[in-house]
Amino acid sequence: MPRVNVEKKVLNENERIAAELRSRYDAERVLCLNLISSPGSGKTALLEQTLSRLPAEARVAVLTGDVETDNDAARLRQFGFPVKQITTGGTCHLDARMVERALEGWDLADLDLLLVENVGNLVCPTSFDLGEADKIVVASVTEGDDKPSKYPSIFLRSSLVILNKLDLLPHTNFDVEQFRENAERVHPDVPIVGLSCTTGHGMDRWMRWLEERRREVFPASVESGATGD
Amino acid sequence: MPRVNVEKKVLNENERIAAELRSRYDAERVLCLNLISSPGSGKTALLEQTLSRLPAEARVAVLTGDVETDNDAARLRQFGFPVKQITTGGTCHLDARMVERALEGWDLADLDLLLVENVGNLVCPTSFDLGEADKIVVASVTEGDDKPSKYPSIFLRSSLVILNKLDLLPHTNFDVEQFRENAERVHPDVPIVGLSCTTGHGMDRWMRWLEERRREVFPASVESGATGD
Repeated sequence: MPRVNVEKKVLNENERIAAELRSRYDAERVLCLNLISSPGSGKTALLEQTLSRLPAEARVAVLTGDVETDNDAARLRQFGFPVKQITTGGTCHLDARMVERALEGWDLADLDLLLVENVGNLVCPTSFDLGEADKIVVASVTEGDDKPSKYPSIFLRSSLVILNKLDLLPHTNFDVEQFRENAERVHPDVPIVGLSCTTGHGMDRWMRWLEERRREVFPASVESGATGD
Repeated sequence: MPRVNVEKKVLNENERIAAELRSRYDAERVLCLNLISSPGSGKTALLEQTLSRLPAEARVAVLTGDVETDNDAARLRQFGFPVKQITTGGTCHLDARMVERALEGWDLADLDLLLVENVGNLVCPTSFDLGEADKIVVASVTEGDDKPSKYPSIFLRSSLVILNKLDLLPHTNFDVEQFRENAERVHPDVPIVGLSCTTGHGMDRWMRWLEERRREVFPASVESGATGD
């Protein structure tokens, strides 16, 4: 079965680079998050809302992946934080090598938070570790409440589920409780943050999650210890 | 570059089986359509609406693909037409071999129309020929009007673009003219049918396209000739 072996080799190479990236993030205390969703679930809108809420001195950067175009980078650059587009030219996911190359020229010591927006695809990006601390799946109410059952892998591997476009809920037959049940069947107790990038509803909870998650991954005591050296 | 060679081999094998399927469809005058979209764009809803509008004697069958679950087949079976679920178990697209296997036990001579609902994914299914006469891309207004620019390959290869969820248009910032421009930049003069599976708006035009397309692919004169033998 040559295909399996070659795929394994490609994945092993990806894992090697992802492990290197993870070490670099850990060394510089950068929380790296890998946002995964269907096309058009609102990852870029979420990033716009997120960047607009951060103070100008926030140490945050964004890598945004797409098969084609640099539309998303153009949308995100207006907030003044470093943003780079990764255009995969046909490839259906980001891999660790693409992230490694995109980081060239950036000093991770300048960052607390690195947000990676993956290619719009609920399947393939799931298998490619980018060295992130967490995968976050972004679903939206217009996609249907059965998505966790149909695409279990990404819901299982995500530390957080974002349920976007809540403002459209009254116009759909989406059942939030059914979605929660479906998500929890795949990933018991996974936190779900419902929000709307249009109205801003739920954004506070997401911004709080970001803060708390960084403290959880890089506890303050270690930071104090480091500065006390 | 062993990976490229192995991928080529897999695609060549797929092309061989797809060509066989295409011959079988042509021999039996079955119009096979391959529906491709993001997760949650409404392919299954479109099929429900389509099947509900067909007379009981219509010679139609559906193959519906998903990474997991047979939810869609269950939804579609209630209309009384033959439906089979293809569960890929992790694979991000249907391939010709999966379709070939799913067709076992069906006599193509009983069919005029075979609707194949691909796995929800705008990237990978594009590369796998299933022997269909046409690929049809289903987009929805909640996904944003930039999708043709970001996922050009599927818009280029589709004979028809369906723009779904028009009922939600007033609640979004989707620009229909911009979408049309983006689609036509990738695929000049591609027909676009706007519709809503919730209100039924546009369904007539889609049903008419189906009828006309079958007559175009399998002209009636040939049919008369065959029965006149």
